[in-house]
Amino acid sequence: MNSFGSALRVTTFGESHGLGVGCVIDGIPAGVKVDMEFLLSEMDKRRPGKNKLSTQRNEEDTPEILSGVFEGVTTGTPIAVLIRNKDQKSGDYSAVANSFRPGHADFGYLSKYGIRDYRGGGRSSARETAARVAAGAFAKMLLREFGISVEYGVFQIGEVVALEEDFEFAASSEIFSLCKEREAAMKAQIEAARDAHDSVGGAVKVRIKGAPAGLGEPLYYKFDSELGGLLMGVNGVKAVEIGAGIKASSMRGSQNNDQRTKEGFLSNNAGGILGGISTGQDIELRVYFKPTPSIFLTQKTVNKDGDDVQMNLTGRHDPCIAARGAVVVGAMAALVTADMLLLNATSKLDSLRKIYG
Amino acid sequence: MNSFGSALRVTTFGESHGLGVGCVIDGIPAGVKVDMEFLLSEMDKRRPGKNKLSTQRNEEDTPEILSGVFEGVTTGTPIAVLIRNKDQKSGDYSAVANSFRPGHADFGYLSKYGIRDYRGGGRSSARETAARVAAGAFAKMLLREFGISVEYGVFQIGEVVALEEDFEFAASSEIFSLCKEREAAMKAQIEAARDAHDSVGGAVKVRIKGAPAGLGEPLYYKFDSELGGLLMGVNGVKAVEIGAGIKASSMRGSQNNDQRTKEGFLSNNAGGILGGISTGQDIELRVYFKPTPSIFLTQKTVNKDGDDVQMNLTGRHDPCIAARGAVVVGAMAALVTADMLLLNATSKLDSLRKIYG
Amino acid sequence: MNSFGSALRVTTFGESHGLGVGCVIDGIPAGVKVDMEFLLSEMDKRRPGKNKLSTQRNEEDTPEILSGVFEGVTTGTPIAVLIRNKDQKSGDYSAVANSFRPGHADFGYLSKYGIRDYRGGGRSSARETAARVAAGAFAKMLLREFGISVEYGVFQIGEVVALEEDFEFAASSEIFSLCKEREAAMKAQIEAARDAHDSVGGAVKVRIKGAPAGLGEPLYYKFDSELGGLLMGVNGVKAVEIGAGIKASSMRGSQNNDQRTKEGFLSNNAGGILGGISTGQDIELRVYFKPTPSIFLTQKTVNKDGDDVQMNLTGRHDPCIAARGAVVVGAMAALVTADMLLLNATSKLDSLRKIYG
Amino acid sequence: MNSFGSALRVTTFGESHGLGVGCVIDGIPAGVKVDMEFLLSEMDKRRPGKNKLSTQRNEEDTPEILSGVFEGVTTGTPIAVLIRNKDQKSGDYSAVANSFRPGHADFGYLSKYGIRDYRGGGRSSARETAARVAAGAFAKMLLREFGISVEYGVFQIGEVVALEEDFEFAASSEIFSLCKEREAAMKAQIEAARDAHDSVGGAVKVRIKGAPAGLGEPLYYKFDSELGGLLMGVNGVKAVEIGAGIKASSMRGSQNNDQRTKEGFLSNNAGGILGGISTGQDIELRVYFKPTPSIFLTQKTVNKDGDDVQMNLTGRHDPCIAARGAVVVGAMAALVTADMLLLNATSKLDSLRKIYG
Repeated sequence: MNSFGSALRVTTFGESHGLGVGCVIDGIPAGVKVDMEFLLSEMDKRRPGKNKLSTQRNEEDTPEILSGVFEGVTTGTPIAVLIRNKDQKSGDYSAVANSFRPGHADFGYLSKYGIRDYRGGGRSSARETAARVAAGAFAKMLLREFGISVEYGVFQIGEVVALEEDFEFAASSEIFSLCKEREAAMKAQIEAARDAHDSVGGAVKVRIKGAPAGLGEPLYYKFDSELGGLLMGVNGVKAVEIGAGIKASSMRGSQNNDQRTKEGFLSNNAGGILGGISTGQDIELRVYFKPTPSIFLTQKTVNKDGDDVQMNLTGRHDPCIAARGAVVVGAMAALVTADMLLLNATSKLDSLRKIYG
Repeated sequence: MNSFGSALRVTTFGESHGLGVGCVIDGIPAGVKVDMEFLLSEMDKRRPGKNKLSTQRNEEDTPEILSGVFEGVTTGTPIAVLIRNKDQKSGDYSAVANSFRPGHADFGYLSKYGIRDYRGGGRSSARETAARVAAGAFAKMLLREFGISVEYGVFQIGEVVALEEDFEFAASSEIFSLCKEREAAMKAQIEAARDAHDSVGGAVKVRIKGAPAGLGEPLYYKFDSELGGLLMGVNGVKAVEIGAGIKASSMRGSQNNDQRTKEGFLSNNAGGILGGISTGQDIELRVYFKPTPSIFLTQKTVNKDGDDVQMNLTGRHDPCIAARGAVVVGAMAALVTADMLLLNATSKLDSLRKIYG
Repeated sequence: MNSFGSALRVTTFGESHGLGVGCVIDGIPAGVKVDMEFLLSEMDKRRPGKNKLSTQRNEEDTPEILSGVFEGVTTGTPIAVLIRNKDQKSGDYSAVANSFRPGHADFGYLSKYGIRDYRGGGRSSARETAARVAAGAFAKMLLREFGISVEYGVFQIGEVVALEEDFEFAASSEIFSLCKEREAAMKAQIEAARDAHDSVGGAVKVRIKGAPAGLGEPLYYKFDSELGGLLMGVNGVKAVEIGAGIKASSMRGSQNNDQRTKEGFLSNNAGGILGGISTGQDIELRVYFKPTPSIFLTQKTVNKDGDDVQMNLTGRHDPCIAARGAVVVGAMAALVTADMLLLNATSKLDSLRKIYG
Repeated sequence: MNSFGSALRVTTFGESHGLGVGCVIDGIPAGVKVDMEFLLSEMDKRRPGKNKLSTQRNEEDTPEILSGVFEGVTTGTPIAVLIRNKDQKSGDYSAVANSFRPGHADFGYLSKYGIRDYRGGGRSSARETAARVAAGAFAKMLLREFGISVEYGVFQIGEVVALEEDFEFAASSEIFSLCKEREAAMKAQIEAARDAHDSVGGAVKVRIKGAPAGLGEPLYYKFDSELGGLLMGVNGVKAVEIGAGIKASSMRGSQNNDQRTKEGFLSNNAGGILGGISTGQDIELRVYFKPTPSIFLTQKTVNKDGDDVQMNLTGRHDPCIAARGAVVVGAMAALVTADMLLLNATSKLDSLRKIYG
């Protein structure tokens, strides 16, 4: 249950305050050039401690490729990547160890396993997403061989909503903001929350460009279903929309249907996927993050014995998980897309004939 | 790719205008009493042709249990259910066969498979959801042994939004409306759309009650991730929210965190799931359906040769898929919950000890 | 757990004395011509009641294709096949219902499920293999598009061993004997066992011809591992050998290694698979069946209460399961091979480039 | 395809001459005490370089547990284990790089992937089995909580066959010989082969004791099927027998059936599994290894261009892989058994009731 994907399958391991986190990537075809510089730059985007808007935990997040690459090229065998933890301050966990932090997985983990690694959230910590980003980088190396790219950016922080979708700007923004004009206001939302010992939510848009029509495996491995499920599973995500999303519910069919001429589709309310299969249009989703549950205000909770407790957390946390979460959304979208690309390879006899002659 | 679930795994088959649809349900423990009356009542809820607000295709949807049940009890072997198609009018498909209906999967299927069963949507037809409802009925038979139930209802049709969440009322409403006061207005939205040869969207709320804390398998088979993915995969769904959903993105942590005292949680913004694991609270999701893509207004599209075409559809369709879609949402939620209940059985050594002594 | 295969996945259902048995075949690419005559001839090979050397249960075994085929061609959607039971005499099962038949799964099923369909073995009956043969026929339709064929035959019945491997002769032999000269002696073994109210074992050879080099997915979905596992799972099989098999254990490397010149391999001790991957040579396995456990001599066993019982079975059974079992072995080998053919399609970037350009 | 198991799932990675090998073990219930001493002793059994009868590659094989263990106990999260390679002499591979070693996977890997890590066999090297042994140690820690143990030993080397099955003796024998009397003769077979620059085959028996009746998941995840498949997939294995094995093919039913009285079964020709489900008897399999393909005699093969080549290998190899292979067989058998124990936990409603009340 720590694996996902089908033809491209990723398994992750590791905890916030253990030795490290990592992944095993299985299914990348042999012969893909491994771009180490790109891998490092992807890791760097998600890396904590780069600025005052994210957690002050300072990790280098250097990935060590343990296997699956030979002479700079993938060999078709599993690619294992290990990212050692460096700055896992093991402070005093007694408060956290015995009580359940509001908004966190503490109570669920203890209910489920009867035991819990309480240091920094253990397995449920967002630290694990470093492994996803490493895996996503390999998916992107594959996708770009076929002209497929994944763009992403933050379109909302708290009450500030982007006025435009400038993915190029987002790529260089400290908070991955899609809107140059509103970037400062977005940052101000984060700072205000942080200064109030509080946190704030945010939302991310992801766009997959260049995916050919035909990707997605009905009926239970649809492209949108896989994207929806995996993105809903990213830490802190509470909603996912594709295309027109919620708005579609109040529309008429004549408004929502994407009509088409020989020049192409006249709209993209579908978000690039119909019946679970890509149409060749851009694939567009919006992903909504809750505010970071770790806040530094006094909160009511209970301890292991069920007694009432006033909890005062200390520690280092992102005041807004949507910003670095955007990088994770991009990585997951790339992994799903690569999986779909591989799966579709055997959908018709003609495709097999091209391979086996 | 026509299967879903892990410990409880369902495989479906069948097309709109073939011989029938059906499912194989694998993983229901032995010893569950099979309640035929309940199964039939579940099928009846989704059945088309019952009123003027749904398609006029008239199907009895009688399920034939082919295997897996002996002397009124499940045996632990796979339960196959077959629902034969009765009223699949095979009219003139020439228009549909050669052109791509806007908002439908036609183009995707042809791109993917190079061939397509154009009669009534083939595999992508909502007809297949009869099989899901049959499977869901078995999941519910298992769940009620443990006091777990699944409620659902429509909270929005077009521009009309429910004022209350009365699941009991929804169970007896022709359109599964959650709001007695607004039911007529909701119906009026559907009728108006139908009379305009158009269709309208809608949205469904589902609530899982009685699920114990501890269900959900991190990190990649989280309870919310599975619900989110499978519900996003239901025909016509474009968005899924859990708990506070989208609203969480504009909130502060201090507002969104569900604090707790020994009397229980003080709120349920999480929607009953934290870190992918149930907390023991009600699990609540909202699922948004687009308007039925089959409308009877002239639409622009292209044919197989890429030429511009004016399409005028005929046939029988629900003017609003959200109503009967609500039944499907309930069935899928039950299947996911049963799967999670089974998977969690081996999460800790103590559980195994209870079984093996 | 009633499914097998990866890219080509088969799910079966049904019991000996229920309404029927069947399968859902998922993953056959779209565009494969469905040869009904071939399907019927495959079913006929396994069909019981054809001669005095098999069970006298008389089944027509007519497969009904419920889905996945349109205008004579596979559509890429799941192919469901139903074979109704016709001649399931429901006699007096009181003896069998309360006691455990030696050599049968009765005790295991009751231990596992706490309940058991005791009519004719229920799910554990070889009747279910009709569904495998139907699925295997579809795999063969795919394989022959690529010049791959599967041959099989019986090389041993009781103490009589074949002197030659004439697969062509086997195809027309009532007992699928590989040896014209020894066919009569083999039959005599079966008849002698039957006349003694006893049964007899036998062994089957299977040869896959034309499989290209490169099939098989290391390290845990190797070609030989999948063949070995699935063939070991065929009812009554107690051993599987590939290539030199057991003999390899007493050999030196210099004897066992298959050396090679530009004209080809000088031997085939590997049985066509090295490191789990096909080498392009014929793939050869031997599969060993135990004697039918249902015999008509008095046997010692216990009943549900643990008391000693003298059991005297009645009923209709093959005196030697290896004969009709050979057909099942051939079907399973075809299914594994087709699965491997599909999986290998994405092993290298160059293959993907051929498809996506 | 580098994962196996269902409820207990193991993923391995790594190559012979890369940075190391390792595994991710997913599904071990929380609360199992981690016995480091036991883990190290298991690793030590398989470790190369201990004596003159195995390869002279000298590895410490120290496992580093990267995750999934907290305060000496499993947490239910994935357990990653890394074993770094230390003594991977990177000599001159030019001969091996361009030609295909007889009996090796070289040609298959190149056919499949178009590229191959030719240093010491890469992924197909038996070096990877260190990861399996580490995973197997965790399975054994779980199994012993339920009184289940796995014994193994070598019963044949070349032409020398054991006269007895003394598993206790095997545990302390340098070559895991089951027979004190024949141990010297077995060693002599290995030495003679080695001195002749050749290698020799061997065979292993494995016995699982204490498994309760009811383990195994029909019809396609049978206990014997999974054991058979995974053991056939161990490097160099060419045959697997369960219980009477091949001998069953020449027997009558009256000889082969295991009759039973209230004192227990009168024989164990079934090898402890009937219909794919354990009967409570000892589970017994025999596994046959080919001779090591790496020999130091001149062999005929071809190079990448298809030209005839005389190959003279150098390097360090076990002259008989069956000896250390026995440890791997034991580890795999433990992993399968633990998987079956977990899967069976939800086979009946009564079991679930014990957990959820």
